[in-house]
Amino acid sequence: MLYEINEKAIRLESEGKKIIRLNLGDPDLATPDEIIEAAYASMKAGKTKYSSSYGENKLRQKLAELHGVKAENVVITPGSKWGVFATMYLMMKGGGNVIIPTPYWTAYDLIAKSLGAETKLLRTEMEDGWKVDLDKLERLIDKNTRMIILNNPNNPTSKVIDVQTLDGIVELANRKGVTILSDEVYGTISFVKTKSILEYDGEQTHILTTGFSKTFSMTGWRIGYIIANKQLVDKITKLNQITINNVPVFIQDAALKALELQKELAKKIKEEYEQRAKLASTTLTKAGFSFTKPEAPFYVFPKMSGLDSEKFTLELLDKGVAVAPGTSFGDYREHFRISLTAPRAEIKTALDKISEAVG
Amino acid sequence: MLYEINEKAIRLESEGKKIIRLNLGDPDLATPDEIIEAAYASMKAGKTKYSSSYGENKLRQKLAELHGVKAENVVITPGSKWGVFATMYLMMKGGGNVIIPTPYWTAYDLIAKSLGAETKLLRTEMEDGWKVDLDKLERLIDKNTRMIILNNPNNPTSKVIDVQTLDGIVELANRKGVTILSDEVYGTISFVKTKSILEYDGEQTHILTTGFSKTFSMTGWRIGYIIANKQLVDKITKLNQITINNVPVFIQDAALKALELQKELAKKIKEEYEQRAKLASTTLTKAGFSFTKPEAPFYVFPKMSGLDSEKFTLELLDKGVAVAPGTSFGDYREHFRISLTAPRAEIKTALDKISEAVG
Repeated sequence: MLYEINEKAIRLESEGKKIIRLNLGDPDLATPDEIIEAAYASMKAGKTKYSSSYGENKLRQKLAELHGVKAENVVITPGSKWGVFATMYLMMKGGGNVIIPTPYWTAYDLIAKSLGAETKLLRTEMEDGWKVDLDKLERLIDKNTRMIILNNPNNPTSKVIDVQTLDGIVELANRKGVTILSDEVYGTISFVKTKSILEYDGEQTHILTTGFSKTFSMTGWRIGYIIANKQLVDKITKLNQITINNVPVFIQDAALKALELQKELAKKIKEEYEQRAKLASTTLTKAGFSFTKPEAPFYVFPKMSGLDSEKFTLELLDKGVAVAPGTSFGDYREHFRISLTAPRAEIKTALDKISEAVG
Repeated sequence: MLYEINEKAIRLESEGKKIIRLNLGDPDLATPDEIIEAAYASMKAGKTKYSSSYGENKLRQKLAELHGVKAENVVITPGSKWGVFATMYLMMKGGGNVIIPTPYWTAYDLIAKSLGAETKLLRTEMEDGWKVDLDKLERLIDKNTRMIILNNPNNPTSKVIDVQTLDGIVELANRKGVTILSDEVYGTISFVKTKSILEYDGEQTHILTTGFSKTFSMTGWRIGYIIANKQLVDKITKLNQITINNVPVFIQDAALKALELQKELAKKIKEEYEQRAKLASTTLTKAGFSFTKPEAPFYVFPKMSGLDSEKFTLELLDKGVAVAPGTSFGDYREHFRISLTAPRAEIKTALDKISEAVG
């Protein structure tokens, strides 16, 4: 119901209604001017032609350096979501199942369903700090399990997987011969140290998908990348050739400029979102919600006993606040997700309306 | 082998070799400044966020007007190739077969194979003016046939389907309940009148896929669109939601600007490519090749008895000219495809090298 709410919010806005949009992970901060200027300069220089389905060499090289891999392990994608789709499209062919801890990002499950893959959901609970239970995980893995999807930091909980648990998951996956697809799109801006899947065996066994959207406020630019072994990178490139062909080169040039600004921007974003998370925590606690403290941008995933979050979300939308019901992230009817992706004043207004709505 | 040649050409160029690139349908003309400025203005105005997976309303509305359909029948895609992939992904699920007249654009067959769909190739011959034989087509259709793909004008022959044949194909498809996917990406710039699939029953039964690449020299921008019935448009939008999400809004704004320039640009492109086609025809005839006269940009598909076009193409690439072997378009070993997508002087040099190579 996540996308339905978004399309409805867009429609209400086009009818002139004011909606505070806290339903998507789309930062309110503008894309920095330097990045826009880099795209413009690139267009003017004629970088408007077809290009390699691997992505531009300069960008692949730079990303390889940053992650300590080779350029041949990097392929540029139109967003990190394409990374998830492409990887699952290639790995889940002819059946098999994928294990997804919940709450999860909606797209994982929708992609699996679209591809006809079986999903095995591994429920985690707020009361356990959203921790994956390794014994439960081991029992879920069978001979048809091809993949485990981790989202670290997690959307919608903004929880980072603790190192001990992550070590345990990787050890188990290696022992069972299952590939981990690690979506780390919030990794560079998390408030706490986040261990990357690449810290285990580089790009050899497991797969990293991530993107520029969150760190650089470039959601609408649609650029991300995958780091994986060369064989998979080659296969994804072949899929790119018959689908999207290439990410526009001027967008890749903009992304290359963005990487120069990474440290500065990541710091700024972290600071702003820690403030927003504090603001939200105070108000939500006062209103009687429970939740785990956000360890990364952009989300809080509060719970209230007895809440019907779908009904709640639709009613709230009519009052001018868009959030996402917990049911969009698995079987979490008593939760809903707030994206703190608006200026603080708007967040405050929205939080007050949320508090009233349950008051 | 089309993509391999392209990647090899890119590699040779990065090693400092001069390659005349006549292997892709990528016009040498630059994207017009007005279009670039429109993209820039849009970025500066903050159109850098996630947006609707249907595409922007203004652009859908404008395209609907141009094609005489409703906005709800239009969905914006990252290139016309995405239109082909998305349509086949949705319609070929669970098997079935697709009929593709040959010579065909490589991507159709690669997409079908990737999706596990059966392809039934319908061979046409240069000697028959590349005409589809309706009796052969009827015999190919069986109860599992879901789709016929037409490419009108055709890549690689630059032949436009004559009205009588097209009428016959549509009548047959309607009678048998088979959907036509009509790729008309060269339609607005063809040298002769080209009947669109939409002239039959609008968007109700069949599907149009096309894009901005060829008419507006926007190949690298990755923007196209599908016109189809609302149900399919809704399904493609759902697929967009779990894959590419949306075409960047600033690119859609650039495309909207491009439509204002359509008449003027289409005229300019037609005139230039008719000149190039004449130049090529003269030289190729002199060198002993046979071919049908191009009726649209950008291609000529010459034949020489006994030619091994794969060998020929690779040898030619080492001499600094990239073209595509006939085998990339079906079982046409004695043909190769020249894209007239370089300045005339370069085309002349390339044609001379081609003539020498068979001399």
